[in-house]
Amino acid sequence: MEACHKLVLLRHGESNYTRDNLFCGFGNDADLSDLGEKEAAVAGQRMLEAGLSFDIAFTSVLKRAVKTLYLVQEELDCHWLPVVKTWRLNERHYGALQGLSKTETAKKYGEQQVKIWRRSYDVRPPPLDKDDSRFCGNIAPYRDFDPTIIPVCESLKDTVERMLPAWHDVIAPDVKAGKRVLIVAHGNSLRGLMKYLKQLSDQEIIRLEIPQGLPLVIELDEDLHPVRDYYLASEEDVKVAKTKVGVKDNVN
Amino acid sequence: MEACHKLVLLRHGESNYTRDNLFCGFGNDADLSDLGEKEAAVAGQRMLEAGLSFDIAFTSVLKRAVKTLYLVQEELDCHWLPVVKTWRLNERHYGALQGLSKTETAKKYGEQQVKIWRRSYDVRPPPLDKDDSRFCGNIAPYRDFDPTIIPVCESLKDTVERMLPAWHDVIAPDVKAGKRVLIVAHGNSLRGLMKYLKQLSDQEIIRLEIPQGLPLVIELDEDLHPVRDYYLASEEDVKVAKTKVGVKDNVN
Repeated sequence: MEACHKLVLLRHGESNYTRDNLFCGFGNDADLSDLGEKEAAVAGQRMLEAGLSFDIAFTSVLKRAVKTLYLVQEELDCHWLPVVKTWRLNERHYGALQGLSKTETAKKYGEQQVKIWRRSYDVRPPPLDKDDSRFCGNIAPYRDFDPTIIPVCESLKDTVERMLPAWHDVIAPDVKAGKRVLIVAHGNSLRGLMKYLKQLSDQEIIRLEIPQGLPLVIELDEDLHPVRDYYLASEEDVKVAKTKVGVKDNVN
Repeated sequence: MEACHKLVLLRHGESNYTRDNLFCGFGNDADLSDLGEKEAAVAGQRMLEAGLSFDIAFTSVLKRAVKTLYLVQEELDCHWLPVVKTWRLNERHYGALQGLSKTETAKKYGEQQVKIWRRSYDVRPPPLDKDDSRFCGNIAPYRDFDPTIIPVCESLKDTVERMLPAWHDVIAPDVKAGKRVLIVAHGNSLRGLMKYLKQLSDQEIIRLEIPQGLPLVIELDEDLHPVRDYYLASEEDVKVAKTKVGVKDNVN
């Protein structure tokens, strides 16, 4: 197979919630931490050094992703780049766990239960009540959505199914048309895409850690099957970043 | 006439070129100056205080406008806002004057000639040669355009004619559909829109100064005819800003 397309994925930099060890996810529009801003700029520099440039970028509607992308654009000096924001690239929805401390959650529900929510493919955390102030059906940009499509909790499987239409309908056609595409999103929405592209099993995707702030290049053949993928970083950098994200539980 | 739509226009904050009294325009992707960044943030605060929020924003492909919009979004906490960037909202193209010092240009061509280029409606400055390194047909985002549509110099009339398709084709339909629209652009592309909306004569539009960084609210009736327009600023602030922009020659 010959690679003829290059797609770049980037998980946003550290958020304040990750820093403070809180469950964040779909419904929490956490800002980047100071470290997260720095990680975003370094990601941009890595892309610049690799000689990458883009024709279009896709991101979620969450601030930590939009901001990471903007900081990358500053480094690449491409403010003009068309940016498409879609809720389908948002982070997984952690339901009633959203905003809670991970330590307290473990105390309340037990380490084992929390591990199941985090590490299983199709088990959902407890849902958010639609009267809960954390439900995002009443705020922009979800206000005009049919409320039944707004998640109140998601398994990783739900996130994968929710994000894939963004790939099929809007991103893949651009890649196929020869556009150089950058996607800045979240740990689990990017996992969803990796699962689909690389045809990973439910178990394989759970074990796949996508570190924050390290650009992941995927070379694809003309049918958009991946030929190879690699991080724009040294093996050591990838190892350190993966360990960090593993420790932080991969839920931000 | 009853107003049923509200459109907000914003001219970007001061650029490094304005600060240094250089001709900037379409083909020069000048950054905001420190003052320009501050002006952008203050514009966002003014909109916040006025209780404004938006469903979509339009801007040019020039950094000083994109950045101004981003800084406004930071103040309004709406990173999720869909942003459409179009070259049709770019600043007027100053042809061979681009990048030159305004003082030197006056010395070279004479004060009177420079005044004509600046203050007439349909006189073009000397064109840029397509071999000139300042011609933007070889750089993103114009690289794939038919070179014949890429300006090499523009009269204000040319700018108006070039920007109006963006209004008719993409912005006006959104306003009519009830979306709350923000446009962050440039002195002359915004003048073009004001000329069209308020049916100003060629002479009237030349005298219209749109100050940097002051949000201009236009209330429109159901046929998108303006009912009233006003700045989100005190009369004194508007006067000071207009004087500043008048002195700076309104060419940035």
